[in-house]
Amino acid sequence: MSQHEARKDHQPVSPELFRDVIRHLASGVTIITSSAKGGPVGLTATAVCSISAKPPMLLVSLSNTSHTAEGVEESGAFAVHLLSHADKAYAEKFALPKDHFVGIPYHTDEATGVPVLSEALGHLACVVERSIPVADHILFIGRVVGCELNSKHPHPLLYFDRNYRKLSTASETPATNLEPWGSEQDIGLVSA
Amino acid sequence: MSQHEARKDHQPVSPELFRDVIRHLASGVTIITSSAKGGPVGLTATAVCSISAKPPMLLVSLSNTSHTAEGVEESGAFAVHLLSHADKAYAEKFALPKDHFVGIPYHTDEATGVPVLSEALGHLACVVERSIPVADHILFIGRVVGCELNSKHPHPLLYFDRNYRKLSTASETPATNLEPWGSEQDIGLVSA
Repeated sequence: MSQHEARKDHQPVSPELFRDVIRHLASGVTIITSSAKGGPVGLTATAVCSISAKPPMLLVSLSNTSHTAEGVEESGAFAVHLLSHADKAYAEKFALPKDHFVGIPYHTDEATGVPVLSEALGHLACVVERSIPVADHILFIGRVVGCELNSKHPHPLLYFDRNYRKLSTASETPATNLEPWGSEQDIGLVSA
Repeated sequence: MSQHEARKDHQPVSPELFRDVIRHLASGVTIITSSAKGGPVGLTATAVCSISAKPPMLLVSLSNTSHTAEGVEESGAFAVHLLSHADKAYAEKFALPKDHFVGIPYHTDEATGVPVLSEALGHLACVVERSIPVADHILFIGRVVGCELNSKHPHPLLYFDRNYRKLSTASETPATNLEPWGSEQDIGLVSA
């Protein structure tokens, strides 16, 4: 048995221990929308990550039992909404089981047909390039075909340790060597 | 041509516009480590997301030209380190091209063989279940086989709009319906 195969035998940690650690990975709160059977669907999510800028691509992970995953599979498109702290009520609403769009202004994105929350901090409209089932979720990899930011000085809504949080307003160190997905400096293979 | 195929023709947005929007998605800063050719490798990353708790799984996205991606492919394992704001110097160091581990205490995780930064806020050690090349990155999906948090009251290091940031210390609203990856309440398909 190879070393790699041997490692596959390792037991996973308990779901409780995993949750206790991973909930300390801070994240921006988003709302992911799509359309299913002609109606808008959506949910609050933090499992969003940017993958590349050339071409612009991002990934979302959705529970495979959600209406929203059903909509993304059906329509082949989704929108990721960035939320400001002032949008917290949106996040709370889309974390409930239903009536997500009641009383919330939205319009249909012409290019993709997905619902866009008109007053959210911003959005990225994506067409699905690939969907990958993993455990009880589906990863959707999207090419970004439209995006917009509605504020020059946003105050984002964050999730950390089971609470909605906001950023400190203190000025901070520029992250000069980081792209939105991290460092591109570990470039051994390019120079090799 | 079906509607889905028609959508595939949409042009992506420019890399510049994409960066301008996505850098406003706040994220926790992590360091991802592995081993390549018997030595430790690692880089600073924000493209990490949790996928499921049963089994505990998470995903990282690494530049396909990085030493770290080479190490993860070779060893079949990686560790994701959570960072506190006090660990900012670690993030800056691992965002540079080399000498990442010089002067930083680390030890080898017995189960996976990957280097663990002994004084980071916490870590999750993973074995690779699947690797998926997407554009100029590789997504590694890992099963969590070990994890640890070294502080009961952490102050996380964040990335937002090209800067390292910290959380406001103000108390906040409990995110009662969110798991670390988002809502599980949009459960149309379970009840259907």
